[in-house]
Amino acid sequence: MPQDVRFELPFKTPVSEHLEFARERHLRWVWDMGLVRSQAGFEEYQSWDLPQAAARTYPYASPDDMVVLMNWFSLAFLFDDQFDAGRPDRADRIAEVARELIATPLRPTGTAPRVVCPITVAWAEVWSRLSDGMSLTWRTRFAASWGRFLVAHTEEVDLAARGLAGKLGLEEYAEFRRRTVGIHHSIDAGERSRGFEVPPQVQAHPLMVRMRDLAADTIGFMNDIHSFERERRRGDGHNLIAVLHRERDYSWEEAAAEAHRMTTDCLDAYLELEGRVPQMCDELALTTEQREHVQMGVEAIQHWINGNYEWALISGRYTASKEGPAALAELSGKGSLDDLLAV
Amino acid sequence: MPQDVRFELPFKTPVSEHLEFARERHLRWVWDMGLVRSQAGFEEYQSWDLPQAAARTYPYASPDDMVVLMNWFSLAFLFDDQFDAGRPDRADRIAEVARELIATPLRPTGTAPRVVCPITVAWAEVWSRLSDGMSLTWRTRFAASWGRFLVAHTEEVDLAARGLAGKLGLEEYAEFRRRTVGIHHSIDAGERSRGFEVPPQVQAHPLMVRMRDLAADTIGFMNDIHSFERERRRGDGHNLIAVLHRERDYSWEEAAAEAHRMTTDCLDAYLELEGRVPQMCDELALTTEQREHVQMGVEAIQHWINGNYEWALISGRYTASKEGPAALAELSGKGSLDDLLAV
Repeated sequence: MPQDVRFELPFKTPVSEHLEFARERHLRWVWDMGLVRSQAGFEEYQSWDLPQAAARTYPYASPDDMVVLMNWFSLAFLFDDQFDAGRPDRADRIAEVARELIATPLRPTGTAPRVVCPITVAWAEVWSRLSDGMSLTWRTRFAASWGRFLVAHTEEVDLAARGLAGKLGLEEYAEFRRRTVGIHHSIDAGERSRGFEVPPQVQAHPLMVRMRDLAADTIGFMNDIHSFERERRRGDGHNLIAVLHRERDYSWEEAAAEAHRMTTDCLDAYLELEGRVPQMCDELALTTEQREHVQMGVEAIQHWINGNYEWALISGRYTASKEGPAALAELSGKGSLDDLLAV
Repeated sequence: MPQDVRFELPFKTPVSEHLEFARERHLRWVWDMGLVRSQAGFEEYQSWDLPQAAARTYPYASPDDMVVLMNWFSLAFLFDDQFDAGRPDRADRIAEVARELIATPLRPTGTAPRVVCPITVAWAEVWSRLSDGMSLTWRTRFAASWGRFLVAHTEEVDLAARGLAGKLGLEEYAEFRRRTVGIHHSIDAGERSRGFEVPPQVQAHPLMVRMRDLAADTIGFMNDIHSFERERRRGDGHNLIAVLHRERDYSWEEAAAEAHRMTTDCLDAYLELEGRVPQMCDELALTTEQREHVQMGVEAIQHWINGNYEWALISGRYTASKEGPAALAELSGKGSLDDLLAV
């Protein structure tokens, strides 16, 4: 299954011009914060090219904010890989750290973490910058989006620890994937990156709620396709292609084709709703400025769909045939080279 | 300092007619769920008369919902008392349970708790009922309000465990009290109890944000006055009267008088803002139905200010001169008779 499976996206999105400036400062930060602890871990991390993901998904961030967003990506992706199949008891530590990460945005900004490890220390620092200048309403929404993602991540690790990864039915998996993909808070961060907020009555409108869910579905399924080889190598059954293969008795090729079709369906459904946004703005009698913010909110979703897509095609994170320490660790069930949950 | 210090409140609020019906079922539930584990603990709990608090703060709840709200009060108040000054290491367990309580509303409804003890099991059950029928936007707001309260509670316990309770300056204490009093989520629950939601653009409006904060300040300070004897007996320095006594070199009488004045100031400031609500509704161009929901939202705040006040005057929780096992436990630094954080 090639990493470079293509989709027809009806919009192009810009790339930040601060990519190289921010990358350099970001990589220093990752090392200084102890988010990589070995040379091999650092090389593996660099091969993922998360700075490019941030530059594509938040193209309008200022140079300084771009560094913050890259820093945030690093701790989120690195935390995602901390499970070790050889140590199922590690699930408890992951759950504990996840709950601590949930608590951070609920504390007064600048509060030190109460459960200490490189991931939580990094997040407390990032959050104080990521929340800067945003309203209580936005902080509330971000905190809940982020929290829902983190409890789902714990759920995923718990299933793996109990040997139940890849036992979900198709419908159940799709619902689960929407929560584990982590798109809702990623879109929320788009507002911070561009210094605006989508009006609260728009965020609460069923159309926008549904658009956010469909964007999450689209990106989650695309990610399952692009990361299929990595996840097979890691023995991770939480992948749409694997679920279709098992649940429908499809060959791998048929399963991949069906996953592609399902992804396109989600994207089409999203696009259809996007077309109804002006009607929603009329219904809510929004002002000109509010409509501009809605438009920017829609663009934030597009930046994520397209930016994540373009990045996934080339990221070393999803390389099919991989060698070296990281691949060996993955093959042995170890999620990552460095333990980031210890002090 | 008498528990029956009076305030002039400019509104009366109703009391649920389902008080006795719900009390009986609630008390059975508290016992069945292991939220009290000894006869003495049960007697102490009954003396607080939390059912009356619920019947006064949520006067329009259905009979069944009234039981749920009483159940919720029981676990929240009982959790509040779990710190034991003789066992400062217990702060870690309280923090762990608090983080678990924060995670519950972020999980799909009906998910079993991951950290198991009577408090977390009870909360998972209550949440599945308390969230029933409410929008994603309301769940998001409640989850964040509840989470901010719980991290503040952990902060309070941590200060006590480090022997730093009662070392905050006046301004710092007032800010801290706003977070520990737990009024924001209590007001949020008012919408659930009466089956409506305040429009999201109103909840996000600076006027409403400020009204909620001032209601929290008013109720927090009132509670400090009414619970002063209990907290002195427990050696709890987190009390406005104690802070004024220490920070301003006031006599206890002077400190109490100043606390009363500060409380009245908060109430007056709240009332002044309440008068500006119609203007906010005009500014937001709300529909007639939305204005009704705003009015009900304001009433939910009033129910809390007045209902909590009327209950505090007579609750056995705040009795000044107390004897028996609960008072002895308090005098020895043990927050409660029963340990509810063990399995």
